[in-house]
Amino acid sequence: MIAVDWGTSNLRAWRIDAQGRARDRIASANGITRVPPGGFPATLRATIGAWLEDGERHVLMCGMVGSRQGWVEAPYLPCPAGPAAIAAALLAVPFGDAQVMLVPGLSARDPSGTPEVMRGEETKLLGLIDSLGGEGLVCMPGSHTKWARLAGGEIVGFATYFTGEAFAALRDGTILGRMMAPRGAIDPDGFRRGVARSGEPGHLLHHLFGVRAGALFGDIATDAGEGFLSGLLIGHEVRAALPGGGPVRLVGDATLVGLYRTAITLCGGQPVAVEPDAALAGLTLIAGRAAWN
Amino acid sequence: MIAVDWGTSNLRAWRIDAQGRARDRIASANGITRVPPGGFPATLRATIGAWLEDGERHVLMCGMVGSRQGWVEAPYLPCPAGPAAIAAALLAVPFGDAQVMLVPGLSARDPSGTPEVMRGEETKLLGLIDSLGGEGLVCMPGSHTKWARLAGGEIVGFATYFTGEAFAALRDGTILGRMMAPRGAIDPDGFRRGVARSGEPGHLLHHLFGVRAGALFGDIATDAGEGFLSGLLIGHEVRAALPGGGPVRLVGDATLVGLYRTAITLCGGQPVAVEPDAALAGLTLIAGRAAWN
Repeated sequence: MIAVDWGTSNLRAWRIDAQGRARDRIASANGITRVPPGGFPATLRATIGAWLEDGERHVLMCGMVGSRQGWVEAPYLPCPAGPAAIAAALLAVPFGDAQVMLVPGLSARDPSGTPEVMRGEETKLLGLIDSLGGEGLVCMPGSHTKWARLAGGEIVGFATYFTGEAFAALRDGTILGRMMAPRGAIDPDGFRRGVARSGEPGHLLHHLFGVRAGALFGDIATDAGEGFLSGLLIGHEVRAALPGGGPVRLVGDATLVGLYRTAITLCGGQPVAVEPDAALAGLTLIAGRAAWN
Repeated sequence: MIAVDWGTSNLRAWRIDAQGRARDRIASANGITRVPPGGFPATLRATIGAWLEDGERHVLMCGMVGSRQGWVEAPYLPCPAGPAAIAAALLAVPFGDAQVMLVPGLSARDPSGTPEVMRGEETKLLGLIDSLGGEGLVCMPGSHTKWARLAGGEIVGFATYFTGEAFAALRDGTILGRMMAPRGAIDPDGFRRGVARSGEPGHLLHHLFGVRAGALFGDIATDAGEGFLSGLLIGHEVRAALPGGGPVRLVGDATLVGLYRTAITLCGGQPVAVEPDAALAGLTLIAGRAAWN
């Protein structure tokens, strides 16, 4: 079968043998934002056509390809959901002689009933769920960081924080960014000071002004400003998502995982970094339970 | 004497007679960002030259003209500070035959020792202080909203919230803005729902993602989105700045004051709108205590 992780900015595909091993792989920058209207079948064929000609018939896809902006919208499946429920909710889409199925996103409600959504992360979580013993708290840093709770081999709920996108907008679109040296690596000391600041009294909206006042008074050097802002925001997130400390499994990009590891430690949690990319493992797990023709 | 409120975007000047009445006034868009390097004396002369030729010799200025980006930096005076302390801290700058003095900004420290600054608002606060009996909590909405505490006829402290600038950056620079109808008036119902949301469990960074998920699920209509985001942010600010409710004097632009009035009421406070522009009254008060040659 063929496994495809088709996100906003990237497309990755693997050819899997009957023993579940990846025999071949393809990666491209043809994320869904690069695909012209109606162009999903042609882009997929251009990517994995050789494997299809070689006899593959089953294609399982996860990620934003199943969103409203993707090929077809695969409706969100409410939590709790485990491998069986997700495999039973795959959406089949016509694709010549082959059978293409889309993994649904997941939805949840926060304590006030406000909806939560994920798409793509559910597959990575399933790829990790066995190695985690089906239990625990997983943090997946990104533009919209997910904190997912696993129990009894299922994804029982999750909460999303807008931290990454808020950071970029505040850095690039406000006076705070004009007081920082041009973007580079995050200054580790500035980051740690920002995390510490997040634990002091006062709301984030007050702490944000303190970044400006601190720069004005020389308390925050220009080349530490970006790190301070990042630490302030991630620190606020971690203190809200992990109020009592405790162990957290981190999954994602190494740089971001490094920042969250530092912040979680400073906030009293116990970070554990796990497999950075579990999409293939999740797709393989789901494919093994799918109702292929 | 001549009173000048010279801010980032605007310049306003008044000619005041010996009885403290404004005899003439000038307003222009020559805020400090429009003044070329070294161009402050020439811009001032072009604005009030006729009054100087007519014999005026005393010019008192407040606002960003006294910032590092202005004519000369008038150092921040620490709180608590009242009319006498501020008048004693005026900075004289050479200007031909006339005497020009700059009102200093104010600084404060939050409970953690982080600096706070204001520049321009101190003059408006002094313009109101007598009519408020020298006591109370004043909220001055803007890009960086100030909450100032008055007691015993002095400004005893203040806190700043980055709400206005964060709102613009989140609307214009993130996916949240792409789910909203083009900018127009704030939808009142969306605003009230955003304020209500700010009182539900969860951190602002989590509530921000809820704006996206709510739009995706049709819970937040595109033309209510901007109002919802504004209400969410202002609601978070008001709950943090006014934890126990209580009376608040609102000073500023009528539209923003209207939004804060709604939010403060919904959060259990008692808003009172006062004189929207007290800069002239403040400059007149300070000028009467200044040590002119």
